[in-house]
Amino acid sequence: MRELFAMAAVLALASCSTPPAPTAHAVAQSPPSMSDILAHSPAGDWRPIDPENTLYMDLPAGRVIIELDPAYAPNHAANIKALAREGYFDASAILRAQDNYVVQWGRPDDSPRPIRMAHATLQPEFERARRQDDVFTRLPDPDTYASEVGFSDGFPAARDQTRTWLTHCYGMVGAGRDVAADSGGGTELYVVIGQSPRHLDRNVTLVGRVVQGMELLSVMPRGSGDLGFYTTAAERTPISRIRVASDVPPEERTDLEELRTDSRTFVELVASRRDRRDDWFKYDAGRINVCNVPLPVRVRAHS
Amino acid sequence: MRELFAMAAVLALASCSTPPAPTAHAVAQSPPSMSDILAHSPAGDWRPIDPENTLYMDLPAGRVIIELDPAYAPNHAANIKALAREGYFDASAILRAQDNYVVQWGRPDDSPRPIRMAHATLQPEFERARRQDDVFTRLPDPDTYASEVGFSDGFPAARDQTRTWLTHCYGMVGAGRDVAADSGGGTELYVVIGQSPRHLDRNVTLVGRVVQGMELLSVMPRGSGDLGFYTTAAERTPISRIRVASDVPPEERTDLEELRTDSRTFVELVASRRDRRDDWFKYDAGRINVCNVPLPVRVRAHS
Repeated sequence: MRELFAMAAVLALASCSTPPAPTAHAVAQSPPSMSDILAHSPAGDWRPIDPENTLYMDLPAGRVIIELDPAYAPNHAANIKALAREGYFDASAILRAQDNYVVQWGRPDDSPRPIRMAHATLQPEFERARRQDDVFTRLPDPDTYASEVGFSDGFPAARDQTRTWLTHCYGMVGAGRDVAADSGGGTELYVVIGQSPRHLDRNVTLVGRVVQGMELLSVMPRGSGDLGFYTTAAERTPISRIRVASDVPPEERTDLEELRTDSRTFVELVASRRDRRDDWFKYDAGRINVCNVPLPVRVRAHS
Repeated sequence: MRELFAMAAVLALASCSTPPAPTAHAVAQSPPSMSDILAHSPAGDWRPIDPENTLYMDLPAGRVIIELDPAYAPNHAANIKALAREGYFDASAILRAQDNYVVQWGRPDDSPRPIRMAHATLQPEFERARRQDDVFTRLPDPDTYASEVGFSDGFPAARDQTRTWLTHCYGMVGAGRDVAADSGGGTELYVVIGQSPRHLDRNVTLVGRVVQGMELLSVMPRGSGDLGFYTTAAERTPISRIRVASDVPPEERTDLEELRTDSRTFVELVASRRDRRDDWFKYDAGRINVCNVPLPVRVRAHS
């Protein structure tokens, strides 16, 4: 079988692929690949993902890991952790899977659970003020939706002269809401599973991103109801629980680290993806979209 | 259950959704929805999808329908039909599913089939000369990858001063190739299942798009091998056959029509998606990416 796209593998946001070993010819002619760049990166260019800002969602097929972003959504991150800690998501379910859009989860209508300590809804955190000390790795390329796009501490983001916000790229997790801006809060969450729906930027509070297990969510059977909602309980995939990683015994945790987006290695990585110079590419785009930049995550090596 | 994103439903490329009935309040205040616009469209704004340029791919879960684009890939379209007609894809399989990238199919290594009349490979059709008489519905919005983007007879496309090409949006189908530009030809095909990998534009021959059944392909379990290839035969989903629709008895066909992208209805549709003015949206992007524009397809009403 031919190894089609051997050099074209893009695994944006969710994980980091291992391309097949290049041929001797390719080694001689090609610039460093993404895996080469990562393999030679200094340890300091990675940062551990904080267990206190990490959720483990348990599906029958395995664990989905979500990194929350308290820098952009402090109140939502805190509330989602509070919901998880009071067991709000125990025996919850995947409620919706709409093709090329989102998979969404929460409590089914027929299995409500009162909220005890957490908030049912919150004021929106759609965007925040741009600050002098923001660390923002900007992309030079034009974007359809924003004047500036880039990366902020591992998350895709955008900004204008005064405001900054997270962007709806593949794998990003948001807090569903009703018509009122303050009707969300984290009781229903969704993840982007298709082309980035960037028109949702600044309309929904993005709370984080899936850093492992995205492939368990993206294959959910699409729902046959309006907006991809499942119409029967039997169609819903059960979520046994969602926990904050720091509440899980250390030996049961998945210790992850992610490439710092303010690192030299990240700059090299983006450059290697903007300009594809290996033999496979006949035309070099010389551009990259914020939602096509891989954000590598790996299991931490234990010393 | 709250109807989250009630007005935000985007079903780009593959099909057309039916949002829930708006409330009386929403009716009074909201501009026409996509379904309103389509419901009031004149019949002449739709065109039948030509059975001679349509493929039926039979999976265990049902039929996937692909519209070929002979305007951009005449030789590939002809060759893929020749391959289908000589039974090349009979008892073939899904070979690869890489998350946020592509699902790919063809003949497994352990089940080869000689090619009789069709070509094993072709010269590339990555792009073609821009012509005076090209019908091109241009988007006014900036694009990361091309100076001009828009739609050409139902397909997303881009162009510069002299050349025009199809773009790698969700649901687009291409002919996989090896390192050499002329190593493709249609024996292995892939479909985009994630964020648009636009860096592949002008690097692979795009041959068409999935117009029905996309949700059968997008949920393929992701392969555990390099680039998402399945590592065992058991993991592969079988394809019993691929047929040209015009070879199928009329009573077994799925009669589809698609909204003409040079129609007034399409212009209205794009405008309604660029500027979201219903109550749900608090911030109006006022922009749209070429890969976020829905390309509606529906079953033809028989008179």
